[in-house]
Amino acid sequence: MIRIGIVGASGYTGVELARLLCNCPDVKLTVATSRQYKGKKLAEVYPNLAGMVDIVCEDLQSEELVERADLFFTAVPHQTAMAIVPDLLQADKKVVDLSADFRIHDASVYEKWYQKHTAQEYLAEAVYGLPELHRQDIAQARLVANPGCYPTSVILGLAPLLQDGLIDFETIIVDAKSGASGAGRAAQTGTLFCEVTEGFKAYKVAAHRHTPEMEQEISELCKKQVAISFTPHLLPMSRGILSTIYARLGESVTDDELNDLYRSFYKNEPFVRVSERGVFPATQFVRGSNFCDLGFKIDSRTGRIIVLAAIDNLVKGAAGQAVQNMNLMCGLPETRGLLGVPLFP
Amino acid sequence: MIRIGIVGASGYTGVELARLLCNCPDVKLTVATSRQYKGKKLAEVYPNLAGMVDIVCEDLQSEELVERADLFFTAVPHQTAMAIVPDLLQADKKVVDLSADFRIHDASVYEKWYQKHTAQEYLAEAVYGLPELHRQDIAQARLVANPGCYPTSVILGLAPLLQDGLIDFETIIVDAKSGASGAGRAAQTGTLFCEVTEGFKAYKVAAHRHTPEMEQEISELCKKQVAISFTPHLLPMSRGILSTIYARLGESVTDDELNDLYRSFYKNEPFVRVSERGVFPATQFVRGSNFCDLGFKIDSRTGRIIVLAAIDNLVKGAAGQAVQNMNLMCGLPETRGLLGVPLFP
Amino acid sequence: MIRIGIVGASGYTGVELARLLCNCPDVKLTVATSRQYKGKKLAEVYPNLAGMVDIVCEDLQSEELVERADLFFTAVPHQTAMAIVPDLLQADKKVVDLSADFRIHDASVYEKWYQKHTAQEYLAEAVYGLPELHRQDIAQARLVANPGCYPTSVILGLAPLLQDGLIDFETIIVDAKSGASGAGRAAQTGTLFCEVTEGFKAYKVAAHRHTPEMEQEISELCKKQVAISFTPHLLPMSRGILSTIYARLGESVTDDELNDLYRSFYKNEPFVRVSERGVFPATQFVRGSNFCDLGFKIDSRTGRIIVLAAIDNLVKGAAGQAVQNMNLMCGLPETRGLLGVPLFP
Amino acid sequence: MIRIGIVGASGYTGVELARLLCNCPDVKLTVATSRQYKGKKLAEVYPNLAGMVDIVCEDLQSEELVERADLFFTAVPHQTAMAIVPDLLQADKKVVDLSADFRIHDASVYEKWYQKHTAQEYLAEAVYGLPELHRQDIAQARLVANPGCYPTSVILGLAPLLQDGLIDFETIIVDAKSGASGAGRAAQTGTLFCEVTEGFKAYKVAAHRHTPEMEQEISELCKKQVAISFTPHLLPMSRGILSTIYARLGESVTDDELNDLYRSFYKNEPFVRVSERGVFPATQFVRGSNFCDLGFKIDSRTGRIIVLAAIDNLVKGAAGQAVQNMNLMCGLPETRGLLGVPLFP
Repeated sequence: MIRIGIVGASGYTGVELARLLCNCPDVKLTVATSRQYKGKKLAEVYPNLAGMVDIVCEDLQSEELVERADLFFTAVPHQTAMAIVPDLLQADKKVVDLSADFRIHDASVYEKWYQKHTAQEYLAEAVYGLPELHRQDIAQARLVANPGCYPTSVILGLAPLLQDGLIDFETIIVDAKSGASGAGRAAQTGTLFCEVTEGFKAYKVAAHRHTPEMEQEISELCKKQVAISFTPHLLPMSRGILSTIYARLGESVTDDELNDLYRSFYKNEPFVRVSERGVFPATQFVRGSNFCDLGFKIDSRTGRIIVLAAIDNLVKGAAGQAVQNMNLMCGLPETRGLLGVPLFP
Repeated sequence: MIRIGIVGASGYTGVELARLLCNCPDVKLTVATSRQYKGKKLAEVYPNLAGMVDIVCEDLQSEELVERADLFFTAVPHQTAMAIVPDLLQADKKVVDLSADFRIHDASVYEKWYQKHTAQEYLAEAVYGLPELHRQDIAQARLVANPGCYPTSVILGLAPLLQDGLIDFETIIVDAKSGASGAGRAAQTGTLFCEVTEGFKAYKVAAHRHTPEMEQEISELCKKQVAISFTPHLLPMSRGILSTIYARLGESVTDDELNDLYRSFYKNEPFVRVSERGVFPATQFVRGSNFCDLGFKIDSRTGRIIVLAAIDNLVKGAAGQAVQNMNLMCGLPETRGLLGVPLFP
Repeated sequence: MIRIGIVGASGYTGVELARLLCNCPDVKLTVATSRQYKGKKLAEVYPNLAGMVDIVCEDLQSEELVERADLFFTAVPHQTAMAIVPDLLQADKKVVDLSADFRIHDASVYEKWYQKHTAQEYLAEAVYGLPELHRQDIAQARLVANPGCYPTSVILGLAPLLQDGLIDFETIIVDAKSGASGAGRAAQTGTLFCEVTEGFKAYKVAAHRHTPEMEQEISELCKKQVAISFTPHLLPMSRGILSTIYARLGESVTDDELNDLYRSFYKNEPFVRVSERGVFPATQFVRGSNFCDLGFKIDSRTGRIIVLAAIDNLVKGAAGQAVQNMNLMCGLPETRGLLGVPLFP
Repeated sequence: MIRIGIVGASGYTGVELARLLCNCPDVKLTVATSRQYKGKKLAEVYPNLAGMVDIVCEDLQSEELVERADLFFTAVPHQTAMAIVPDLLQADKKVVDLSADFRIHDASVYEKWYQKHTAQEYLAEAVYGLPELHRQDIAQARLVANPGCYPTSVILGLAPLLQDGLIDFETIIVDAKSGASGAGRAAQTGTLFCEVTEGFKAYKVAAHRHTPEMEQEISELCKKQVAISFTPHLLPMSRGILSTIYARLGESVTDDELNDLYRSFYKNEPFVRVSERGVFPATQFVRGSNFCDLGFKIDSRTGRIIVLAAIDNLVKGAAGQAVQNMNLMCGLPETRGLLGVPLFP
């Protein structure tokens, strides 16, 4: 039985990890930390867990923490993560970090978008935890940087196209929309029910911190430095991301070819579903699941391709992918605990 | 491997059954009928099932149908059910009927609230499928009448109180609220998004057909004919029922006694969770699960008890309870396939 | 031109007052206070007001404040109001107080449900601002206590019935449901979008502070001290209250009589609409308006009446009723600025 | 008093027209047609209108219809409109047609996207009813083609940029999102509450019929034939459109210049609000109003501009703009009846 710890268990990602781990027979949640809810049962903070998760939130120093589990999920904000992760690694623990701190290989890029990086010595070994691209490396890693929610949808949506001649890499535009759970559980005016419901807006236009993460992975696949335009929006719903991705198509690429390309690219992937032609993904059909649904359309009038990618931001965009990485890192079947059918309606 | 058929697979209850059966290793969905979607994959109608459920909707006559499965869920409207169920029973099949047709023992009561009953000869053997009250009978039954969504919440909420002296049985009032999925998937103006969102209203006030069903079970427990006031309301959300139940308390009943009573009454029930004192159930904490969460409060100023009962109307209020009944009828562990943690947020 | 001040302009009630005053040609908003947004345009805090309301939030002491307007709306929390209102009255200003501080005539009752009352000398002159019951007194008052949102719906729903013999006053139960805007704009975990959407729950069961306010007005109409059971619930929507009210009917009261009673009771009321028989009020049909829609149903099986009352909690339940009171206090036509048609869908 | 008729009064656009006309003292709604609700009061179909609109739906032939009003709003589907409008014009009536039938000047373009056009002889005189571009012509017209909802937001968002050198006209991409009221009130599975809530998807990708309408107006402003990519999406909310528009910027265009450009372009427009810099429009701040809120951001990393445009699809995107056109055609003040403040929250 592998012992699992969640650092930062009281956020939405933390509770989603706790939920998913209930489906994993090979592991056991042995420690959960939360400064805010220290001493309180996690199931009191999140009554959905009542009767299923029987763990009390603690506030522990690293020395104590490391004794209590074999693999840790660090579900804390960036900057907090880089202060904790080194201690865990030094104690020979495995870590899936759900913050942004170890996603960007180049510290100078990280520092441009975030702030000073104080654990740069671990960047080289951190593996970007998108199993569809880096499965082998993840299986060998002791530190996996779990991808951001937006990047997961965008990179999976674009990956098959990032080959010579298919699209013009300079024309990639990502118009992405996320449910409010992506903003976390901190009490803020901007995410109050009345501010979000029956409303829709863009935010951090051309300035969102997930941009360099997407560009890193895209550029690696293109073998060329690529810049994209990225506009995130806030949807009046709880879970789900839909990314609408635009690019100029190379000449003479047909719909049939693209359809074959997507299907063959993902044919062995358990969590990527390519939609039937003429059908477009919808977030409600991946809700609660680890699936990424993909579809596309050629706009022949303008020579563009439009790719649609849908995920549940808390599952494939966070906790589910983290469990997928855990499975890989621990030599467990990759899909263990993750085959729940999406909840609809 | 027990073969399972769903008659009426394309409604919200049908797709929810299909979802839950994916978690049941001992059974296999072998036939699904839908007149409307005949020839179409169920996963095309409900893309959440893509990659998980690989069955094509058929439109079959009884003779063909009975060959294809060992146990049938009939998820069709009342009146339609009473036309199909007899054929299934005559072919020695087990049936969990999710319509109202076999819930009311007294045909004259049924005919007062619904319409003429044309399969009265099966009423005597039909068992009201609320496992918490009728577990033993369900296990022996070949025809189980799966309870209505509102009645499930109300009967579970009231059952511990239906003893001499605890409450005045003449004062029971049920104010219940349901998400829109309870209205089904038929295209109707009244359940369009724009008609339901950001709105709230009562409907069928003192006239809802679930009334006699609740009164039957309540009266049986009281050992006395009881009439209740029942007001259902439509919530601007998809899943969930909360029933707020009022009754005049007998004298000298204390909060401690009631707390003990509820806990002991349900102490062996895997799907009933009694809330901590001072905490009230919320539908969002049972979403997608088979739980019924219960809480109560004594209003000492007026001498009343107020009971709160929350379920997911599509799970414990329909498909989940049906699977629970299937497990009992087939000698499988009662909780098989039903221990998914509620999805929150 | 009457000069109007809003004390506490940056809450949801404040912005709704600002919106409604734009429709009032006889008055002018001359001062708006907000500690939090001092120096900021109100239209920056609430961009819906852009181009329509050109006022900057200030943080003023009473001496300065009183110079700036003739009538003040105090849209601040209880306890804060009782510290400000006396200063305004001493400067001969008219006040519509939207807090609870001057609603309860009996200070000891107030202190039992709230906290110590430090301005008791003003209780005697404060008029409970429900125009349908106290129109004449409001017109003469210099201090009007604007009713709570729940009480507005409940008192209007019950008033015609509070006569000898119609109902049993001991059996009144109020099951009320409110949109999240009633909780205000303070940043709190409990009213975050993800906590509220797709969910429903009761809160402050048998313990809500609007109880004594309802009992005061009901008892006055009954000419008898009456206690009620009151359960508020939180709806996954922004605006709207629906109160479902139960009481045992006296003997031999007919549906026709009740229908006549409601229609004649409210026949001259501009803001009360009695629904057609068989139609029940819905919050979506009063959205954004000052209407209170009423309907009822006799449950002949149990001898009860069920009354349904719908309002927009921010309009008839707060800012709209306050403007109605302002109109009465200033000798303006009562409906001025308040005849906007509800917004549907 | 100008007599107004609504043809097709029972759709969402019809009821919104009825609501807005209540604010217009110079006109009177004298006839409303609806085949479906013939003989029923419009206020019974839409109870929000109760007490405010006292008109009965009729089903009339043209001969009768034309006698009953001076100006008609035809709020019927395309193809139906082209069968009615000629009769109205021949009777010397003014018409604001809210369908697509008279928006496209070039019949062959219309026929490519819609179907055969049987009233082509009226295309030449029809004026595209976007007052910000065609105010003078509208004032002279007897037939105004009220713009589509998406085109209104997109054309207003782009218009200031459609000058030589500012943007590359070949790179315009429109990613637009609409609330469900845009789909109308027809009973369809796809717009049921449970299908739409907590979900998000694209539809008619690169194939929506509003495309040629946008291209017509954009090309006219560019003085060049332009093709755009257009992806509409369905939001889980009722009212509101947000269009996110991308284009490659010409060289050396600064943020200051663009800000000045937008402000001066719209400085006399009563219904266009240019957001403060760094603030982006949100649909919740135009709800229920005739405003179009605009904002933009330069993405200097990629050399693009991103424009955001928000409207209420039922007001500026349909009924409000129609009333604005009515005012212009009748010589009334353009803003009459349209200055209601947006409803927030």
